Amino acid sequence: MVQTMKAVIIGGGVIGGGWAARFLLNGWNVSIFDPDKAAVGKINEVLDNARNSLPFLSDAPMPEEGLLTFADTVQEAVEGAVWIQESVPERLENKHEVLAHIQSLCSPDAVIASSTSGFKPSELRVGVERPEQIIVAHPYNPVYLLPVVEIVGGDDDADGGVTHHAAEVLSAIGMKPVILAREIDAHIGDRLLEAVWREALWLIRDGIATTQEIDDIITHGFGLRWAQMGLFETYRVAGGEAGMRHFISQFGPALSWPWTKLMDVPELDDELINRIANQSDAQSGAYSVRELERIRDRNLVGFMAVLKQHHWGAGKSIVDWTSRLRRTANQIGRETDDGPLACYQSDVLPAWIDYNGHMTEYRYLQIMSEAADVLLRRAGLDADYLAGGHSFFTVETHICHLGEAKLGDRLTVSIQILLAEAKKLHIFHIVKQQDGVVVATGEQMCLHVNMKTSRSEPMCTPVAEAFAELARAHQSLPFPEGAGQSIGAQK
Amino acid sequence: MVQTMKAVIIGGGVIGGGWAARFLLNGWNVSIFDPDKAAVGKINEVLDNARNSLPFLSDAPMPEEGLLTFADTVQEAVEGAVWIQESVPERLENKHEVLAHIQSLCSPDAVIASSTSGFKPSELRVGVERPEQIIVAHPYNPVYLLPVVEIVGGDDDADGGVTHHAAEVLSAIGMKPVILAREIDAHIGDRLLEAVWREALWLIRDGIATTQEIDDIITHGFGLRWAQMGLFETYRVAGGEAGMRHFISQFGPALSWPWTKLMDVPELDDELINRIANQSDAQSGAYSVRELERIRDRNLVGFMAVLKQHHWGAGKSIVDWTSRLRRTANQIGRETDDGPLACYQSDVLPAWIDYNGHMTEYRYLQIMSEAADVLLRRAGLDADYLAGGHSFFTVETHICHLGEAKLGDRLTVSIQILLAEAKKLHIFHIVKQQDGVVVATGEQMCLHVNMKTSRSEPMCTPVAEAFAELARAHQSLPFPEGAGQSIGAQK
Repeated sequence: MVQTMKAVIIGGGVIGGGWAARFLLNGWNVSIFDPDKAAVGKINEVLDNARNSLPFLSDAPMPEEGLLTFADTVQEAVEGAVWIQESVPERLENKHEVLAHIQSLCSPDAVIASSTSGFKPSELRVGVERPEQIIVAHPYNPVYLLPVVEIVGGDDDADGGVTHHAAEVLSAIGMKPVILAREIDAHIGDRLLEAVWREALWLIRDGIATTQEIDDIITHGFGLRWAQMGLFETYRVAGGEAGMRHFISQFGPALSWPWTKLMDVPELDDELINRIANQSDAQSGAYSVRELERIRDRNLVGFMAVLKQHHWGAGKSIVDWTSRLRRTANQIGRETDDGPLACYQSDVLPAWIDYNGHMTEYRYLQIMSEAADVLLRRAGLDADYLAGGHSFFTVETHICHLGEAKLGDRLTVSIQILLAEAKKLHIFHIVKQQDGVVVATGEQMCLHVNMKTSRSEPMCTPVAEAFAELARAHQSLPFPEGAGQSIGAQK
Repeated sequence: MVQTMKAVIIGGGVIGGGWAARFLLNGWNVSIFDPDKAAVGKINEVLDNARNSLPFLSDAPMPEEGLLTFADTVQEAVEGAVWIQESVPERLENKHEVLAHIQSLCSPDAVIASSTSGFKPSELRVGVERPEQIIVAHPYNPVYLLPVVEIVGGDDDADGGVTHHAAEVLSAIGMKPVILAREIDAHIGDRLLEAVWREALWLIRDGIATTQEIDDIITHGFGLRWAQMGLFETYRVAGGEAGMRHFISQFGPALSWPWTKLMDVPELDDELINRIANQSDAQSGAYSVRELERIRDRNLVGFMAVLKQHHWGAGKSIVDWTSRLRRTANQIGRETDDGPLACYQSDVLPAWIDYNGHMTEYRYLQIMSEAADVLLRRAGLDADYLAGGHSFFTVETHICHLGEAKLGDRLTVSIQILLAEAKKLHIFHIVKQQDGVVVATGEQMCLHVNMKTSRSEPMCTPVAEAFAELARAHQSLPFPEGAGQSIGAQK
């Protein structure tokens, strides 16, 4: 068993909360210090979001959550910590004071990282005792889901200072560190965002478009491109076979055209602020911020699942992360000793509702299929296994509807292994509502098949072993009510 | 049957090809004019990409592709066309000549739309006979997948000119038109992109980051956000409960900080061009442009499928589009008296296929449900019956998979009534391929319920009589193989 490590979060806002969630759900102990007592509530809201999204990206069992504590003093917080993340408001004097205080109390081996979006390490380090201990680790919201983090050390740090160690630590909790070659105001991402923001302000101010229209153009256009290829790779594709060199040469003239108002800065006066706020209310006011957060997280999980399936972009980071989780977990069945395996969780979505106001019947089978896919992946049925020509086909399914799932219900599908023997996999799904009430069960017989011959044949390594172990673990569970019966037998 | 409409594409590059694919796959006839004979090959490559991606977004059968022709002259091309899309290179004199020539030959009722990324309608219209006929319809690559299109008319056009009609036409082929309030150089999206591009050039030139690092920060960070919420909605969420007004007020000071180099323009000299081209080769050179296009399209389809499932962002446009497709598709449902009732017929759609290349299991239940709905409607379960508080709920389903449905198979679902008695309806589905082979069966027990009390109660008139009659007619049919059994009994 690896020693549980401790991270400290100084400043418990949305960013600090996101950091806390990412460390905690990856098995770290986390101590939070924030003099504002409202921080506890905020952190718990962020944790709630994180628990309902991050684990759905993982093919491997998540480690057990670490221990979360709220410290009364910085001294209490930093005791024994190997990572200290500062996320206090963006005022330089304030950061100087906090960082110096941390350094006077913490281990000299700990990483002290600032979430600052604007300041350079050289600015943060003014007046501290061990300058090289302090770096920038700038994440993006929501920190528990978006992998990217910009890491910046000092331009003259010996051997890059602690940046490489920091990158290794953050990779292990599923992040994608990008180490900057040199320090620069606002790092990289926020410089790009700032440029877009200025231009967007002009468009609003001059009445060319509303916030809704600008967002529509982003979400229905280049936003979809940038979720998978960035600026340069997108242009490389757009340039076609003529090549990148040819393509960017063409851009030359456009740079001196008067297309943008970027040479000047719009005044963010009350009129412009009001206009933006009113347009934003019209655009998004139907949803609370909490609702928007959940919608955002659900979409992010969906996108990353697509990218993960294709081993592309942010999906590659997720694949790396889940491989690490799998290596450090006690293989399969770690959480299965005392009952069926919880495999899948989903809100009942508007598109799943029929004219009766209930979840359409085939959606029950859809979530059972999703759960079975999770089970198979956990048992080692990965891209290599499939590429070897092996898979499972369902031959029979028996669904019993015991209740009615409605819009907004949160359903959890757990699976009990009834039999795993040579080529046969006999499983039983239990679909529960958030209150624990079983709304449906599903019994399935699956056969392991050779996809080249389309004939059934025994499972191979490691899937055979994984299912044998799960079946042993589930042997002691009671045989589920409703299994093994024909239709009508229960009535 | 709706009259097939004709679109003309002038200029057969990547953008022209994308337009051709979008119209063609939506059932329009398309005529292409490009004096360069290489255009035929380029168009066919784009069409190939489009046919392998766009249909995967649809829940409804796609219409039959229109007829594609390559015209020898503009005159031949525009004959009978209601939409003419100009996508020739971005040289204003060139566009003037082409647009005037088109207008001298085409119907005055046709829309003439330019794909220009930079020019305003007032610039394009110089010297033409009917200025208001010419508008900008600026799409984003790949045109056949990304929904957004910026529509710009003249600032003084009567009643908005043709922009609203143009928006309606493009909505019908699955696009998301955004009509600009006023004309402006480079419209909206390209202004934002230009701002990012300039800033990125500075970052490369100053050695802060490579193309790979900049793209990583986009694809692992704000790109994932912008695929679903734009700039403003993202900041609204980031601002939290304090609200948008508070959040943007905080941005005020940052605008005057010297964060960016946007006040100046980097010189795109040979050294900078070489640096970008070399870094891009290192980043993406392992893939050909064709491979990158396919990767991009596969990811885009995945993202939009996620968004469609959640009725959000670009997914909403896809839902609207597939509803339109469904309304114009032929209604299916032949019924016979000499055996089980043929209730439902459907092609296996691309979206129904899993990673094994076969129809996903829950889609079998989906078409059985559709068939049961047809059966219930035939028996008199109409809106009035439902409004009276009566309906049927499925309590159990037993599916047996006997074969594998593949892409393009045409499946027919027939239903045999096993029992219809008071409150019980026991039915048996047979799913056949076009060659008569049974790929699946489904046994279902349904209960007639009073929706007010949520309790079962006997069927009412006329449904009770209809099912009694059907049950009598089916009494002489052999009891179907597989019915009445528990899972595994057949093996």
